[in-house]
Amino acid sequence: MTIQKSLPLNANGVPLSAAEAQVLKNGLPSTLSDIDPSRLTITLASTLKTLPEPESLVFGEVTTDHMLYMDFSPERGWSQPQIMPYGPLNLDPASSCFQYCPNVFEGLKAYLALDGTPRLFRPQLNMDRMVISAERVALPPFNADALLTLIKRFVALEARWIPRVRGCSLYIRPTLIGTRASLGVTASTHAALYVVLSPTGPYIRNSEGKGISLLAMSDQVRAWPGGTGGYKLGLNYAPGFVAQRKAAALGYQQLLWLLGETVSEAGAMNVFAVFKRPDGELDVVTPPLDGTILPGVTRASVLSLLSYRPHITALPQLPTDVRINVSERVLTMSELFAASTADTLQEFFCVGTAAVVIPARRIGWQRSSADSSDVEDIRLPVVGGQGSLAQALWERLVDIQEGRVEWEGWGVTCTASD
Amino acid sequence: MTIQKSLPLNANGVPLSAAEAQVLKNGLPSTLSDIDPSRLTITLASTLKTLPEPESLVFGEVTTDHMLYMDFSPERGWSQPQIMPYGPLNLDPASSCFQYCPNVFEGLKAYLALDGTPRLFRPQLNMDRMVISAERVALPPFNADALLTLIKRFVALEARWIPRVRGCSLYIRPTLIGTRASLGVTASTHAALYVVLSPTGPYIRNSEGKGISLLAMSDQVRAWPGGTGGYKLGLNYAPGFVAQRKAAALGYQQLLWLLGETVSEAGAMNVFAVFKRPDGELDVVTPPLDGTILPGVTRASVLSLLSYRPHITALPQLPTDVRINVSERVLTMSELFAASTADTLQEFFCVGTAAVVIPARRIGWQRSSADSSDVEDIRLPVVGGQGSLAQALWERLVDIQEGRVEWEGWGVTCTASD
Repeated sequence: MTIQKSLPLNANGVPLSAAEAQVLKNGLPSTLSDIDPSRLTITLASTLKTLPEPESLVFGEVTTDHMLYMDFSPERGWSQPQIMPYGPLNLDPASSCFQYCPNVFEGLKAYLALDGTPRLFRPQLNMDRMVISAERVALPPFNADALLTLIKRFVALEARWIPRVRGCSLYIRPTLIGTRASLGVTASTHAALYVVLSPTGPYIRNSEGKGISLLAMSDQVRAWPGGTGGYKLGLNYAPGFVAQRKAAALGYQQLLWLLGETVSEAGAMNVFAVFKRPDGELDVVTPPLDGTILPGVTRASVLSLLSYRPHITALPQLPTDVRINVSERVLTMSELFAASTADTLQEFFCVGTAAVVIPARRIGWQRSSADSSDVEDIRLPVVGGQGSLAQALWERLVDIQEGRVEWEGWGVTCTASD
Repeated sequence: MTIQKSLPLNANGVPLSAAEAQVLKNGLPSTLSDIDPSRLTITLASTLKTLPEPESLVFGEVTTDHMLYMDFSPERGWSQPQIMPYGPLNLDPASSCFQYCPNVFEGLKAYLALDGTPRLFRPQLNMDRMVISAERVALPPFNADALLTLIKRFVALEARWIPRVRGCSLYIRPTLIGTRASLGVTASTHAALYVVLSPTGPYIRNSEGKGISLLAMSDQVRAWPGGTGGYKLGLNYAPGFVAQRKAAALGYQQLLWLLGETVSEAGAMNVFAVFKRPDGELDVVTPPLDGTILPGVTRASVLSLLSYRPHITALPQLPTDVRINVSERVLTMSELFAASTADTLQEFFCVGTAAVVIPARRIGWQRSSADSSDVEDIRLPVVGGQGSLAQALWERLVDIQEGRVEWEGWGVTCTASD
């Protein structure tokens, strides 16, 4: 089986595959309208909601007063974009989004800088990925820059919703769904693209900094070669719900997805393992983008920070004498267990837009579902905290996201006049 | 990797796995309302649509005047069922069905018997499968018998829509979607269950009985052990749209899905290969239900008809001296090519509710996407027609479906008083 090429995630490093570059370049036929920010109309809600307390925020439960909406028809292309009061979508029950699930989403966050300006973190990567994900399920392309311009205006309009508490933010959820109203099993000719916003606290409660617990199940598989794991599609997530429940019943907070015994992702996050070499240097390993793993923006950013030399410039919280070697390579459960036994496995952490960086304290492996009591555990000796890579990365990323540090143009401000 | 057990498809034969029997048995907690047909309310449309000509029907394009609708909340359970004018669903844009795709569907058909009574074909199998599919994506269970009672009443109410042309029917699409309005990546606490109806002609144009062409692509994979291929989930379909386009561009009508080089399904249909032994007997082979293959109702029915002895009773169109040996076992592309070269591969046909039975005339295999011109073809010597298994099965199934033949209680009539 052919393995898919890397997706375009690090604007500084990893190149687009030729096919992906083509997807982004192709765009719409010139006879159809692309997304046009100059045609934006804004209809404000007549009453505004009361802002929730930042401490009470649960990820994704509350949405703001408005939504950004546009749709696609094969006759005209993309409609005039609208910012309008948040409200239900009206869709034919035969619509493709319900029946065959050609549904794409993205996740990014807006933060408030010290001067009160909303900021986004590397949003162009999300926009490009969304176009590539759309192509994977045969949804129409769109101008990624135009969508970003609209999102910036929308976030500026909803800026009062951005929490002013460190580690909190306004989560941005662009969504693209197939709306062809027919039961024929074929690509959706019609689509709706909308963006909703949700003020959010920590994605997973990392209670008292103790890290999270992960369970790997060998008989539940998230993604495979020739499948869709490398794309941000809604359909990658529902198949994990039952496994997630099983993990919770066994006392674990998130799943660690495997393919065979190869480590893939954790929950909806990318993963990194940190091994200590005999000479004291650190080997930091993350699974390669082989088409089964989501090319995360946080993953790319962590790789970039870890590769920067001198590391003290990129990660000033780390001791000066740390030596870091980064690699993208296959990581297996056997390797993790062997390293744990040999005391060379030091940290294991998960990264993603929602969670930023979150350390694991414990990883269980259920080799067979036949005997659910048969779970072996790894306990991680370093679980965040002073001197850990997870903590240094979290601090640095949040500093960049919140505009306390400018870094390689990763922070992008939002103004109403964009 | 553990392979899933067979799903419950043949009421006469294949047993439920213990886990699946449990899913069906568990039902809802007694504190919640299950689907209750005695609470059905009916609101008729004020104007009715004009019936389309049966000859003009394209699968799934037209829907009838009404829909059957109910929804689930974790506080009360299932709502009062309603038959109401066909119209849009109003759903929060953050709903799980758009974001994470916990969406289940079923497909069955209503036919008109000679006396004008609507008939369904083995509908209990679809209802049971729907409950099991719902459980796979953590949607709430429901009483399968109650849903069937409602569907019978709904079909009786819409009986004018059942085409009176042989091979045409009223396609029934029960759909169950997650409607939790939150971006948290977790099981949907809320759901909507609805049924829409669509008068339909042949699913695929089998032009002049020449059969269809199939293309197998090695680098596109529909399902995987530990995935969801054995369940009727919307999310199994969108990932095939791009491959379907590629197949069409190469001149093939449908995809033949592989896992490695093992044959899986064709388009949204199960497949059968017919080999001729040196002694003249026929070996009929279909891939086993290993969890990657949908346990089709037509598949189960074909297996049952082919296994019946004397075969002339089940399949009177076949010559009396035919000897048929049926097996569910792994089928590989290499085996098909070798048998084609040795002139022992006689037929290859696809079966499903929409298509019933449709023969292939040609099977291409693109071993690598790197060179799209590199497609090798098998041509089938028998493509439907007199004496073929595909034709004998199609005739018999349609006779049973349309009530010209009563067979093992497979036909179920619909009346308004059910």
